[in-house]
Amino acid sequence: MALIVHKYGGTSMGSTDRIKNVAQRVAKWHDAGHQIVVVPSAMSGETNRLIGLARQISDSPDPRELDMIASTGEQVSVGLLAMALHAIGKEAVSYAGWQVAIKTDSAFTKARIQSIDDAKVRADLDAGKVVIITGFQGVDGFGNIATLGRGGSDTSAVAIAAAMKASECLIYTDVDGVYTTDPRVVSEARRLKTVTFEEMLELASLGSKVLQSRSVEFAGNYRVPVRVLSSLTDPLMPLEEEADSGTLISFEEDSHMEQAVISGIAFNRDEAKITILGVPDKPGVAYHILGPVADANIEVDMIIQNQSVEGKTDFTFTVSRGEYTKALGVLEGIKDEIGAASVIGDAKVSKVSVVGVGMRSHVGVASQMFRTLSEEGINILMISTSEIKISVLIDEKYMELAVRALHKAFDLEKA
Amino acid sequence: MALIVHKYGGTSMGSTDRIKNVAQRVAKWHDAGHQIVVVPSAMSGETNRLIGLARQISDSPDPRELDMIASTGEQVSVGLLAMALHAIGKEAVSYAGWQVAIKTDSAFTKARIQSIDDAKVRADLDAGKVVIITGFQGVDGFGNIATLGRGGSDTSAVAIAAAMKASECLIYTDVDGVYTTDPRVVSEARRLKTVTFEEMLELASLGSKVLQSRSVEFAGNYRVPVRVLSSLTDPLMPLEEEADSGTLISFEEDSHMEQAVISGIAFNRDEAKITILGVPDKPGVAYHILGPVADANIEVDMIIQNQSVEGKTDFTFTVSRGEYTKALGVLEGIKDEIGAASVIGDAKVSKVSVVGVGMRSHVGVASQMFRTLSEEGINILMISTSEIKISVLIDEKYMELAVRALHKAFDLEKA
Repeated sequence: MALIVHKYGGTSMGSTDRIKNVAQRVAKWHDAGHQIVVVPSAMSGETNRLIGLARQISDSPDPRELDMIASTGEQVSVGLLAMALHAIGKEAVSYAGWQVAIKTDSAFTKARIQSIDDAKVRADLDAGKVVIITGFQGVDGFGNIATLGRGGSDTSAVAIAAAMKASECLIYTDVDGVYTTDPRVVSEARRLKTVTFEEMLELASLGSKVLQSRSVEFAGNYRVPVRVLSSLTDPLMPLEEEADSGTLISFEEDSHMEQAVISGIAFNRDEAKITILGVPDKPGVAYHILGPVADANIEVDMIIQNQSVEGKTDFTFTVSRGEYTKALGVLEGIKDEIGAASVIGDAKVSKVSVVGVGMRSHVGVASQMFRTLSEEGINILMISTSEIKISVLIDEKYMELAVRALHKAFDLEKA
Repeated sequence: MALIVHKYGGTSMGSTDRIKNVAQRVAKWHDAGHQIVVVPSAMSGETNRLIGLARQISDSPDPRELDMIASTGEQVSVGLLAMALHAIGKEAVSYAGWQVAIKTDSAFTKARIQSIDDAKVRADLDAGKVVIITGFQGVDGFGNIATLGRGGSDTSAVAIAAAMKASECLIYTDVDGVYTTDPRVVSEARRLKTVTFEEMLELASLGSKVLQSRSVEFAGNYRVPVRVLSSLTDPLMPLEEEADSGTLISFEEDSHMEQAVISGIAFNRDEAKITILGVPDKPGVAYHILGPVADANIEVDMIIQNQSVEGKTDFTFTVSRGEYTKALGVLEGIKDEIGAASVIGDAKVSKVSVVGVGMRSHVGVASQMFRTLSEEGINILMISTSEIKISVLIDEKYMELAVRALHKAFDLEKA
């Protein structure tokens, strides 16, 4: 007997028929002798409907009141799922985050979980009940409802699994796992049986949005094994088969790692690059350029400062394309003050990254990446590296070509 | 400066535009220097939508889980109203019942309020905020959400007004007050400026469903002045005019009472009458007949036991028409056991009542009522009286005629 947390996304909860499917799947796991905690999202479209109502009232609704409203979608889901389990003869009870309680800070609409008191949940599990807990939300120290932000139900599920020392957290979603790259770009893309948390973080933050990054961080910090798998399969498929499907996100590099050096190719099409030319090279230049950008709430990704020539340097960084115009405006505003010659930019660039923990123990990944791109005639605009990732910025029009070439060069189509 | 509770029904909260109207009305009262607590219902249709989802899952959903779902409609309303107040520059904060806390028993879907802790609310009011509290719900001793049943937001508003010793509880609804009878039946029906709680109880329970009966009981017990008034007027109408509109439900008979002996004519079309004939008349006969009816969860209204003749009696009672067949079945089942001759019934009867506290000090109301009906050729099937009400059961086809004749006979069209 194991304690297992199931998380179901909005699509899986999208209608009362789908909720009945979820109930069948949960009951199957419970019948096999496991203790099951379920964390469902709001029915698909519901959170948007609620936020839409708020926007009809106010362009900038108060975050506390927005959380009051947005949190109701999950509350409806947990009640309906409990009923669906009752209808097939399973004992089940639902809780809102505040009832558990899941304690958060007071950063409404983007709160962070501080603690989970699992006494009530554990008593119900021991009494043979399935326990269903609202995702996406908790309660702050003053008794206010606080939500974790979009996608927060993943984080709720992982946090509950961590607090309760669950043996696995199963994230049921509308994809059947994590792929070596986006199958819409490379038809040979292959589902990974395992990835490490670090790889998953890089894959997620680089655009393979299967899981909310924060939930992956949480899982990594608390060593919760997380499996991403499909909720679109037959709910009554054999449990052993289901338990082995999807992609396991593991913290045990050695035992679970597949042989490949590289796990996947991530990419982000919507990048933009800004260069400030002829900046006097003196201490504090990076701060004087990036400080105002950060103050404008613009997130900067890759950063390069050129080798200084005759006391002048060029400084280049990337932002997401949606913030390009705003960022250009900030730099034009400070250009004279810092004595720069001019500001130029390019909003048609994309980022492609190879990701894999195998890189740590293998040399030559970078050179193979660069050679592959060179052979395809793709010019590299910027390079950024981390322990388990190499990213390059390239002209947007070559993005698909680069991803396909790298996928093939690193043999990712082969298991 | 007074503390005033406003309650808005689902129609008043039916769209974001209507919610903005409510905010304007509330702001007007607040601007006049009053402390305002608002208790809004769910947006019209929302509670039915939520219960509909539950019914798609289960024919007999678990009451606790039903409350988990049904309570979310009001939570959305309070958040939206807070935002609408912010948007016009008013400080406002919303609370769910459990946050106040409004403590209830654990009778899910029909819970009763046990206590209200108003410390948080009072602090907010003193800080100049409008406080908005979910109607229809509270939290039981185990931290479960419990709803008060349909129409429960009226009860919430009155209970909050009582707990906080508010000077008045204004119930904004889609009618502009309590009438001498249904204007759809008698075009001369007139709005009452005041009624007493007892009259209101009789008028409400007899079919003039302006307010939930329980809220009227509550108001009477705790001596909270309640005013029923329209939310369909211009929200910016002069406050003095609005404060004097609608119908005041008062506990001060003498000071507020209008001159008339009778306040109104109530009626209930959908009645049914059942008679069990030739019952051996011995102690316990009423219990042996009505016990099984109560066990079948059928509510009995009027009851008559005939004068016994040769040790046999006839026993007649009324039920609501929807339960007629079920009640007949129950009696057929026990007929032989109690030695009765036969069971007969009539499902085409209606009840008409004259209501008024003036009856207490005036004789002749009953005789005037019976004479009026007699002059119209209407046969009385059953009679039931209380201190402030006389009800008669008549053939359904005479109901409108009886109501019109009585309305005229008691001069109710005259102020």
